[in-house]
Amino acid sequence: MTAAPQPARESALQELIDELPAGTVADHPATLQNYRQDWAHDPDAGTPLAVVRANSASDVQATVRWAARHRIPIVPRGAGTGLSGGFTAVDGGIVLSMEKMTDIVIDTATRTAVVEPGAINAEVKRAAAAHGLWYPPDPSSFEMCSIGGNLATNAGGLCCVKYGVTTDYVLGMDVVLADGTLVSLGGQRIKDTAGLSLVKLFVGSEGLLGIITKAILRLLPAQPPAATFVASFPDVESAANAVVAIGATQRPSMMELMDNYSINACEDLFQAGLDREAGALLIGQSDAPGAARRLEIEEMQRACDLAGAKESFCTDDPAEGEMFLHARRQAFQALEKRGTLLFEDVGVPIPQLPALIVGIEGISAAHGVEIAVVAHAGDGNTHPLVVHDGGDPESVRRARLAFDEVMALALSLGGTITGEHGVGRLKKGALPDQLGPDVLALTQRIKDALDPDGILNPGAVL
Amino acid sequence: MTAAPQPARESALQELIDELPAGTVADHPATLQNYRQDWAHDPDAGTPLAVVRANSASDVQATVRWAARHRIPIVPRGAGTGLSGGFTAVDGGIVLSMEKMTDIVIDTATRTAVVEPGAINAEVKRAAAAHGLWYPPDPSSFEMCSIGGNLATNAGGLCCVKYGVTTDYVLGMDVVLADGTLVSLGGQRIKDTAGLSLVKLFVGSEGLLGIITKAILRLLPAQPPAATFVASFPDVESAANAVVAIGATQRPSMMELMDNYSINACEDLFQAGLDREAGALLIGQSDAPGAARRLEIEEMQRACDLAGAKESFCTDDPAEGEMFLHARRQAFQALEKRGTLLFEDVGVPIPQLPALIVGIEGISAAHGVEIAVVAHAGDGNTHPLVVHDGGDPESVRRARLAFDEVMALALSLGGTITGEHGVGRLKKGALPDQLGPDVLALTQRIKDALDPDGILNPGAVL
Repeated sequence: MTAAPQPARESALQELIDELPAGTVADHPATLQNYRQDWAHDPDAGTPLAVVRANSASDVQATVRWAARHRIPIVPRGAGTGLSGGFTAVDGGIVLSMEKMTDIVIDTATRTAVVEPGAINAEVKRAAAAHGLWYPPDPSSFEMCSIGGNLATNAGGLCCVKYGVTTDYVLGMDVVLADGTLVSLGGQRIKDTAGLSLVKLFVGSEGLLGIITKAILRLLPAQPPAATFVASFPDVESAANAVVAIGATQRPSMMELMDNYSINACEDLFQAGLDREAGALLIGQSDAPGAARRLEIEEMQRACDLAGAKESFCTDDPAEGEMFLHARRQAFQALEKRGTLLFEDVGVPIPQLPALIVGIEGISAAHGVEIAVVAHAGDGNTHPLVVHDGGDPESVRRARLAFDEVMALALSLGGTITGEHGVGRLKKGALPDQLGPDVLALTQRIKDALDPDGILNPGAVL
Repeated sequence: MTAAPQPARESALQELIDELPAGTVADHPATLQNYRQDWAHDPDAGTPLAVVRANSASDVQATVRWAARHRIPIVPRGAGTGLSGGFTAVDGGIVLSMEKMTDIVIDTATRTAVVEPGAINAEVKRAAAAHGLWYPPDPSSFEMCSIGGNLATNAGGLCCVKYGVTTDYVLGMDVVLADGTLVSLGGQRIKDTAGLSLVKLFVGSEGLLGIITKAILRLLPAQPPAATFVASFPDVESAANAVVAIGATQRPSMMELMDNYSINACEDLFQAGLDREAGALLIGQSDAPGAARRLEIEEMQRACDLAGAKESFCTDDPAEGEMFLHARRQAFQALEKRGTLLFEDVGVPIPQLPALIVGIEGISAAHGVEIAVVAHAGDGNTHPLVVHDGGDPESVRRARLAFDEVMALALSLGGTITGEHGVGRLKKGALPDQLGPDVLALTQRIKDALDPDGILNPGAVL
């Protein structure tokens, strides 16, 4: 797009302030500063012209129509917990925050939640739980991240290995398109194949195609209590073999992996009694009903033993299982004690997990940065965390090189640069390597058809 | 598109015959006749210029490039079992049949099947089962329908209530675009949110956006054996209430409904001992592991009793359960004995099932046609079958009126005109009523961006 010059933008801003309810538009420098970055802390984040905190879909429509008129870019924003810089501000644009749109309505008869995009994932889970229902998607940040951001990135989490990702739970949505038109897609019916799969297209579109103002989410009956096993392996390869063996006959409700570096970082912080010598740790759960969960977890434990586990333990006490999960859930926090983190999110076909982790060790050594791996192993989705010194430009440079090489390695193994965080701005340099020129051109054609002036989240993904 | 005149088409055809392997292009009148219609038996089907039976993706590319050059329409075709006329021929166009592309490769380590579009659904199931794996989607026509058609319509089936529809099992695909470019989307990784959700966009696109030449399908461990209940209800409302109650606390692996008319049609044919006086019958299954399946099915039976079932029965013997399912599976066949059928596929939010079925009784009476209802009740997806005399134009006219009114009724209840069959040509008149002008315009924009000359399946959906 050709942006309007700065003085024109400032006079246009007054028009927007007049159009929206009082207090909706903020342009105080401190506020602008607060909305520049998400958790990716992109150092190249711009400074927005203003922050719009929408109260309603009609505020979103008015803002988008205004932006379209003046060719001013809009970056939509949920809770700001994105890890790929998908929602960092652009200079002279609008940050359109959905934080005030937080309504949640549970409909028990249709087992759906009708949710505004600013609602926090955990609040949706709590509202559903009050009716004995369950909203499965559980990003590690679920206490802080918003449903709008979850939809924009097609967020995953720990439950995905059995219960799928965000897109599997979206039945419908309202979206404001780039010209300000509000469209309603899908609805409270569970199966619907009328017309193109537009709901699915908007999930994971990272703000490129429209701004989601409402979502209809599918709920399940409350999850049964889980049994848990923990197994330590001499190396990642034997742990990955256990994951393949378990997945061939069973459906674990969780299957997480920690490598030696992560184990030690957690152990330094919590003294949880994890095996510091282990090459890898698997933590698995079964939520099968009744007595089956104990039987299933014992069968998983046997598969681990057969795959060469040094030690394994299982329990059908959910509270005891939760203790083991604590270390896994706190891994990011433990690793932050070691330095600044670059969050990777690469995924590979499960049998390629060992090659990925061995390759990462090589990248780590070559660049003199430490890389810890925690993984949703059952999905082949890993989070290599590049630990470096954020205050030292040379360390940052080496970390970025390592970060890029990990993505290239994942691609060479038939994988993806992002399993659940999105491409955003941090990973867009690697996207052409994954998609190739023809798929990239196809993507651009859809973007151009829906946002011809390029006002929606410019600079992200493409 | 502006079509080339007939003589030009015939000279162009020789070019295609020369370009493709010998025997790939057929234009014998008897062959053309065989490929005009799918199971919808659309009386307005055209006569194609030729039938291309592709042997490979490169045959598909050559055909599409040729068609793009000459502006000749292409209708892709799987096994021809479509029920909405999505794959009926157009005059002077090419029918591009995928029936010879039937390769199936099972990869046990990644638990995926790499499948060509002409492979029959049941063959994929069998190939997976040989490795202890399971491909869940199970349209009633699964012994005859092709994976390509399943993807094109986002086909469902009986297992969807717990295991979802086709889109939930598609990890990747190769697609030939309207200019002949072959793109590979997704892959064998389970989670992937890099770029737009293009895989999901092509699923359910009914041949409008490209031609699928390969699919990577996710497999699950073999399904555990199921326990079954059958309950008869005085009316549909109490049966629907049972479905809502069961779904609030449990995850049945099947939940089918037959109305009084369907019960009697089946009973006439099979004498299966179904209750001819029942207003509705529910057949449900649980495939929970171990002892839980018996406990779950008893709990479902209790929910039916509480909802007012006249009679109920349960068994954890899979063979005995299969006997009850036989009637449900053969309902279409039983109803065909009553006359010509128009296949409906409307879906509503589950609590609206009674209103839908009561409304259908009214439509039936108003037009003097009989309408039987069988339903994937757990999903709110119903198949009202309009029974009429296909040889009597007046009966056909009344049946079409009833067919359209059933769609309008479903929409008025927050439903969809098609849950799993697709819009095709039979339902496209009703699509604008469901989507509205803005969503229709959005759909057209995507169609135009991907197929600017409109050569792919013109006349379907839009």
